Amino acid sequence: MKADLDRLMAARELSAILVTGGEHQNTPRAYLCNGVDIHGGMVIKKHGSEPILIVGGMEIEEAGHSGLTVYNRDSLGWPEIYTQAEGNRSKAFVLFWGKLLETFEIAPGKIGLYGTGDLHEWLELARRLTEVYPDNPIVGETGMTLFDEAFVTKDAGELRIMREVADKTSEVLQATWDFIGSHRAEGETVVKADGTPLTIGDVKRFVRRELMDRELEDTDMIFAQGRDAGFPHSRGEANMPLQLGQSIVFDLFPRQLGGGYFHDCTRTWSIGYATEAVQETYNLVMQAFQTAVDTYAEPGQPTHTMQEAVLDYYEGAGHPTIRSKPGTSEGYVHSLGHGVGLNIHERPSISHLAKEDTFQKGNFITIEPGLYYPDRGLGVRVEDSFIIDDAGELISLTSFHKDLVLPLKG
Amino acid sequence: MKADLDRLMAARELSAILVTGGEHQNTPRAYLCNGVDIHGGMVIKKHGSEPILIVGGMEIEEAGHSGLTVYNRDSLGWPEIYTQAEGNRSKAFVLFWGKLLETFEIAPGKIGLYGTGDLHEWLELARRLTEVYPDNPIVGETGMTLFDEAFVTKDAGELRIMREVADKTSEVLQATWDFIGSHRAEGETVVKADGTPLTIGDVKRFVRRELMDRELEDTDMIFAQGRDAGFPHSRGEANMPLQLGQSIVFDLFPRQLGGGYFHDCTRTWSIGYATEAVQETYNLVMQAFQTAVDTYAEPGQPTHTMQEAVLDYYEGAGHPTIRSKPGTSEGYVHSLGHGVGLNIHERPSISHLAKEDTFQKGNFITIEPGLYYPDRGLGVRVEDSFIIDDAGELISLTSFHKDLVLPLKG
Repeated sequence: MKADLDRLMAARELSAILVTGGEHQNTPRAYLCNGVDIHGGMVIKKHGSEPILIVGGMEIEEAGHSGLTVYNRDSLGWPEIYTQAEGNRSKAFVLFWGKLLETFEIAPGKIGLYGTGDLHEWLELARRLTEVYPDNPIVGETGMTLFDEAFVTKDAGELRIMREVADKTSEVLQATWDFIGSHRAEGETVVKADGTPLTIGDVKRFVRRELMDRELEDTDMIFAQGRDAGFPHSRGEANMPLQLGQSIVFDLFPRQLGGGYFHDCTRTWSIGYATEAVQETYNLVMQAFQTAVDTYAEPGQPTHTMQEAVLDYYEGAGHPTIRSKPGTSEGYVHSLGHGVGLNIHERPSISHLAKEDTFQKGNFITIEPGLYYPDRGLGVRVEDSFIIDDAGELISLTSFHKDLVLPLKG
Repeated sequence: MKADLDRLMAARELSAILVTGGEHQNTPRAYLCNGVDIHGGMVIKKHGSEPILIVGGMEIEEAGHSGLTVYNRDSLGWPEIYTQAEGNRSKAFVLFWGKLLETFEIAPGKIGLYGTGDLHEWLELARRLTEVYPDNPIVGETGMTLFDEAFVTKDAGELRIMREVADKTSEVLQATWDFIGSHRAEGETVVKADGTPLTIGDVKRFVRRELMDRELEDTDMIFAQGRDAGFPHSRGEANMPLQLGQSIVFDLFPRQLGGGYFHDCTRTWSIGYATEAVQETYNLVMQAFQTAVDTYAEPGQPTHTMQEAVLDYYEGAGHPTIRSKPGTSEGYVHSLGHGVGLNIHERPSISHLAKEDTFQKGNFITIEPGLYYPDRGLGVRVEDSFIIDDAGELISLTSFHKDLVLPLKG
């Protein structure tokens, strides 16, 4: 969590961090700006000091919502430097950086560069900054980075927000269930009052409106039916009519409108009735889900133990997995779960290959076993998001029920 | 445009480009994937060859929509390498990169790294790749980069899509005008049928629904009233009731749902009536807009001439500008326009400081003069998006009218 940042900087021997990037959604910057996704600017945090935010005049008003001390780039000499550099932005930035090192009295030592942005631009800028200011080399890192480590545990303020997002997301699942259920069938096709088919596009439009009414936004939900449900990341075809008796994988992972915290959950539905194949697959996935939850014991436990329990279960039931058959696209083909926060995918990973990740108090994680058989025209996945609370308990925040068969009332 | 890529690579002496990044919206990758924003993977393009796409098993289905030749990472040996690297992703990637250099017979020479992603990760990865494979150093660039140059001109396929997005955006402006106009006033406040105030939040919800019904998505529109309109990038306060006689800056820049091409336009509205101050400011901005359009002569003309004409006009009328008073937050405080495409801000810049940019056939650009006086509680901006067509003509694609006073019919 945020309180760990100085410790994490010290472990990396960083005298400061520079968190920047362009207009792109930028999670490290938004994190330091208390969840406010500023459309530009940079955050500098010296070891042991509060972060400060430097923005252009255009962002000064939104920057005020960050709660940080904000500096207008122009009052730090940017216009003069930009003119001096004859309008060459990168040349100007190199000069400006020298001014910042001096103004904010940044001690000699490594400076960690973080953020989301244009790789080509920052690769070259970092090279030049290091060349011109060799006392403050700019460094990157891979693997479990400083922000990955900070994101692994959420503080009370973050969890309060994430519970709200969870509750609203469950409401949208319920509303969608009711919406589909209000229709009727003609033959095997779900139809609207006027007799035209209800399509996946119609459902997605409904879901997006329900999200927006709750100040959430869709980030490319999955609503995939039949064979498409057999591909874990297939989004579903907008013009496909909903059919009875098919498996429908509905993976909803909205975030707060305008950039913010995510929720992540999946349900598999079969409208009207379930075929024997879908029902059997669903039963196996539900059993795998329960196996995963039951495997959790306490903070400190390696996360791979949970995935291994699920792999053992599926393999014991005769299904291929990515462990028994690496690269398979049939059976159980992905890892069991991941952290969620300002990013949809964070650490810890719950994978048999992630040997170093452990469960910790303050984790916000998904558990999402599935089974996929595209050639048999079906796929099933069930997913809740959980926290590990102060008592070390694993608690689901996705309150919506997991029923498979969605009856039509229309 | 895309047909220029080999020429642009040759000018930079690049033997190949690597376009990658994480799940973030990634414009260079989406561009090479023909507008399909894949949620991962990398594109490699050797000089003189078609680009290829390498993705994990989870993205294989969406990758199929790119039209590129797609390789499954797993069939290129990733699982074995990942196991060999004991689950250390970055170590595995360095090994995997060697395999790719060999498999795709990439000639010795510089490799340009492009894309949007985690700066810390790629700064470190690029360093290691260059260290381990010194015949293929990984390089970045700043300023007018390879993709900036390619994006400057749109090909016929891109313009066809962008015209559609433009038409839909104008429809949403009209629908919003009609929606607000259907209300009534109590005193100076716009109210709904039940007598409660119509707020900026209500209007934004309406706009987002209208966008979604047309398969567009909001990317944080501006709907800022009164003093807020005086700050060019203020988004507006959701709970603020709409008032008569205020200047409202409505800057709408949606894109195709799920990542795609943008449109960009702004209108300033005053509900019921306009005060003398707002009307006068609006008249000046409209005159500046016309001045800008009239200044355009032909392809090859430097873009800064257009901004200079507007600066001359405003300064002649007694208003401060960023040229006469650098860093001013009153008067005309920003550049005149910019390119638009898969990014909301692209080259060319229309700024008095961008001395090297010129107008070209195939440009898609905004023209957006404004005047801002936050301390007098007002701001006005008017913006259309234009193309420069095959005949070299500057043509507005934003068809919605520019009337200031929005009458209430309710």
